[in-house]
Amino acid sequence: MKKSLVALALLGAFASAAQAQSSVTIYGTLDAGVSKTTDKTTAIGKRDNNKLGFKGVEDLGSGLKALFQLEIRYEPDTGTVENNTRPLFQGQSRVGLQGDFGTVRIGRGLTAFQESSTAFEPWNGIGSPAGFQTDLAIAAYTSDPLGVASNSKNRFSNAVFYNTPVIGGFQLNATVASKEGISGGSAVVGKGTLLLPQYAAEAQAAAVPYSLSGTYNNGPIGAMLAYERNAVETKLWSVAASFKPVPELKVMGSYQRQDEDHTKATNTKTKAWVLGANYTMGPGKLLVGYGQKNPDGAAFKTKQASVGYEYSLSKRTYIYADLSNKKAPAVAPASESVNFYGLGMHHDF
Amino acid sequence: MKKSLVALALLGAFASAAQAQSSVTIYGTLDAGVSKTTDKTTAIGKRDNNKLGFKGVEDLGSGLKALFQLEIRYEPDTGTVENNTRPLFQGQSRVGLQGDFGTVRIGRGLTAFQESSTAFEPWNGIGSPAGFQTDLAIAAYTSDPLGVASNSKNRFSNAVFYNTPVIGGFQLNATVASKEGISGGSAVVGKGTLLLPQYAAEAQAAAVPYSLSGTYNNGPIGAMLAYERNAVETKLWSVAASFKPVPELKVMGSYQRQDEDHTKATNTKTKAWVLGANYTMGPGKLLVGYGQKNPDGAAFKTKQASVGYEYSLSKRTYIYADLSNKKAPAVAPASESVNFYGLGMHHDF
Amino acid sequence: MKKSLVALALLGAFASAAQAQSSVTIYGTLDAGVSKTTDKTTAIGKRDNNKLGFKGVEDLGSGLKALFQLEIRYEPDTGTVENNTRPLFQGQSRVGLQGDFGTVRIGRGLTAFQESSTAFEPWNGIGSPAGFQTDLAIAAYTSDPLGVASNSKNRFSNAVFYNTPVIGGFQLNATVASKEGISGGSAVVGKGTLLLPQYAAEAQAAAVPYSLSGTYNNGPIGAMLAYERNAVETKLWSVAASFKPVPELKVMGSYQRQDEDHTKATNTKTKAWVLGANYTMGPGKLLVGYGQKNPDGAAFKTKQASVGYEYSLSKRTYIYADLSNKKAPAVAPASESVNFYGLGMHHDF
Repeated sequence: MKKSLVALALLGAFASAAQAQSSVTIYGTLDAGVSKTTDKTTAIGKRDNNKLGFKGVEDLGSGLKALFQLEIRYEPDTGTVENNTRPLFQGQSRVGLQGDFGTVRIGRGLTAFQESSTAFEPWNGIGSPAGFQTDLAIAAYTSDPLGVASNSKNRFSNAVFYNTPVIGGFQLNATVASKEGISGGSAVVGKGTLLLPQYAAEAQAAAVPYSLSGTYNNGPIGAMLAYERNAVETKLWSVAASFKPVPELKVMGSYQRQDEDHTKATNTKTKAWVLGANYTMGPGKLLVGYGQKNPDGAAFKTKQASVGYEYSLSKRTYIYADLSNKKAPAVAPASESVNFYGLGMHHDF
Repeated sequence: MKKSLVALALLGAFASAAQAQSSVTIYGTLDAGVSKTTDKTTAIGKRDNNKLGFKGVEDLGSGLKALFQLEIRYEPDTGTVENNTRPLFQGQSRVGLQGDFGTVRIGRGLTAFQESSTAFEPWNGIGSPAGFQTDLAIAAYTSDPLGVASNSKNRFSNAVFYNTPVIGGFQLNATVASKEGISGGSAVVGKGTLLLPQYAAEAQAAAVPYSLSGTYNNGPIGAMLAYERNAVETKLWSVAASFKPVPELKVMGSYQRQDEDHTKATNTKTKAWVLGANYTMGPGKLLVGYGQKNPDGAAFKTKQASVGYEYSLSKRTYIYADLSNKKAPAVAPASESVNFYGLGMHHDF
Repeated sequence: MKKSLVALALLGAFASAAQAQSSVTIYGTLDAGVSKTTDKTTAIGKRDNNKLGFKGVEDLGSGLKALFQLEIRYEPDTGTVENNTRPLFQGQSRVGLQGDFGTVRIGRGLTAFQESSTAFEPWNGIGSPAGFQTDLAIAAYTSDPLGVASNSKNRFSNAVFYNTPVIGGFQLNATVASKEGISGGSAVVGKGTLLLPQYAAEAQAAAVPYSLSGTYNNGPIGAMLAYERNAVETKLWSVAASFKPVPELKVMGSYQRQDEDHTKATNTKTKAWVLGANYTMGPGKLLVGYGQKNPDGAAFKTKQASVGYEYSLSKRTYIYADLSNKKAPAVAPASESVNFYGLGMHHDF
């Protein structure tokens, strides 16, 4: 009895899968808790982004490796994908090669700037309202203005990602996206009108979007210099540094400036800065931060102060509490003060 | 050559994943078959709910454990998520701790009542038309009336789940949800009008939804007492019991009563009961059940009689046949009788 | 301290999962690259279909096996499910039994014809514009005309799949679908009008859709004969063969004919053929192909010529380059010539 095509296909599929099994690692994060925000009802939600990922490394010999990574993002309180609408693999979907030349990957993921910047934010880049990453640490900049409206704003789709090797503590990271229009992508009114926006829905980028970051990490010192230009030619530059005077303490700060002169006629600059510290005490970790954002022509600055505490139950699991106050310029001339309280559990798997 | 931030992040991600691998268990069910319902074409579909899940337990020492579970639900006949519209992790998305105090979890999952009740339903709670779980065993009650219309109706999103330890065969289970409005949630007309419904779309709950169940399980005897109040203050109580006179035979019954006086002016009560038995004969298992549902003021009762047979090919795989007759009050004064025939295969992995 | 129902359920769930772990194999493909098409901007995209799958085989004894397979398809450049709208398990969702009698599966997957035909297409059935599978190798035939518009057109949902054992190199494969209407399914105007289409949206099939293929595979010779009728009674037949004069070289060809006389009054036939070869040189593999499609009454034929090269970095990973020219009948009387250039990386895991 010989095997014909379909039989071989069937057998081959199952056989190759059995071999392949060792090459896939499943990982993730489930973070959920209770929170209370001024003028809102008590809510169940997340502090960190929630992930379920699949990844692997294949050794190709001669120091060359093939890498892949697929990362689902989801909302633990309702079971939906992140924001109920984002791509299945919102976290990332990338494949590439790693070798003496560095790492090259193709697909979708955080831009070089967005990825490098989280190390200088006192909440380590998580999306919690107590953290600074999604607003002050990036001066409210958007990496993907022509993407689907409900998607995350800190990633490039249709991109190539390159990281150099680390030499003397220095590393350069570059992300370049194609100018492709995005299916279901947003219009950007810019200097146009609602009827004739500067960038129509699903428009191509006028210029190639790219992101560059250089990082330095040597003993107690860390530093970053970054520049990014998005699909509507908004520019962002950022400088950041961190220092560990003792191993238990990390102090950090960043300054960033967004320039929207390609899509705005006036008040094109937004400046922001964040200062913070992490202090480790046995299984506990104290997080503190303060930051401001100052858009040109805005009557009020955004001001945020936060304090947090994490208590580790193991290397993979901790419980946490956050407390934050944010004053953001409201529509009315008075600025609005919002308190945020959070309490929950973070589990890596 | 030292590693800088991104390099460390890359390495760290792959390293921690390699460690994490052992902590994730993949499991699931694929159940598909052929069915025929009166006045409908022969169809391919499911008998049980289909699952693909990821879960893990981490030992934190001192009897404390961290738990997580994420469960995809899907339709095997078309490959879509359950009902083509439900959340990716429709089954559940929960994280929590287990210890001497019991189990506490946060996220989305079956309510205490809905989870406890399946043990007293002769089809063990599966969603088949031959089973009683989704209609008679819960008196047509809805745990999530303000959720997205196409979602399942037996879960709480945005909830905290608590199970006590089992003491002398007794266990108490409680689920409490936040009053948060659900994005895309349904309006409930209730005592209002279509233009001004009692609960608008995406409305917050007026009172905290909760679910309580107490269970007893000792040798051949099982029992449950449960009470639940949903986001529009509809109440449900249920009492159920099971008995095994011989190990091969389990007889069971439940009585439940729904009270909609918060959203209806008249005919607010719905009563229902289900009686059933499972009889195991070697690899075979016979299922029989009968139940009625009687809404106040309804001209006819819903009446359902079902018989099923499962034949195990292994501990994880069985084939099955179902036969069911249901008379449900139709729009017209006469009640309609619907026969259901199903034949298929159930595979756990 | 005894365990009651929920405790048992919890324990049972985690225990059975631990056992089940060995039964699930994760596998997939991540293929991404850069491409350029005449008159379009440089794009990041895929060459092959991208997969993340879960499957398993359970030995039931006596030569009987239970099989399941669930396959996610996705777009690596944006992280969405395939085409941003297709079912989560677009690849397949099937469960079944394998034994002396062959293989029977239920669910959704490639039809017998579509699955068998890929072995006779020089790009091995991948969806790249340089390949011939989705247009010429099937004479532009659609297996699922009443399905959701954005879904793939080479699968049956709601189907039973049967493959005989292979005897003397011969195998028969049959797929039969139910006539069920598809939720969100497409209308087919056919011989009707836009207002009164021959098949309304979500209509049932008038006749049972089925697909048959016979394959022969013996040493250097492969052959296929196939016939399929879809839900709107369009018929397709195809004959194909392959030959390996030396182990490094495979030459192949196919001829197929589509008959739409059930939904069209005139010009109901479409004929197509594809010739191709694969030549392996150490880690390299050269692909060449040429084909034509000739719909009755069309002023111009579709003509496509392609050449490709794959260079293996390992058994699981290769890099590739494609070059293709396609002349397709345009709306205007002149036919349009489109060049396609692709460059990328293919990684199986």
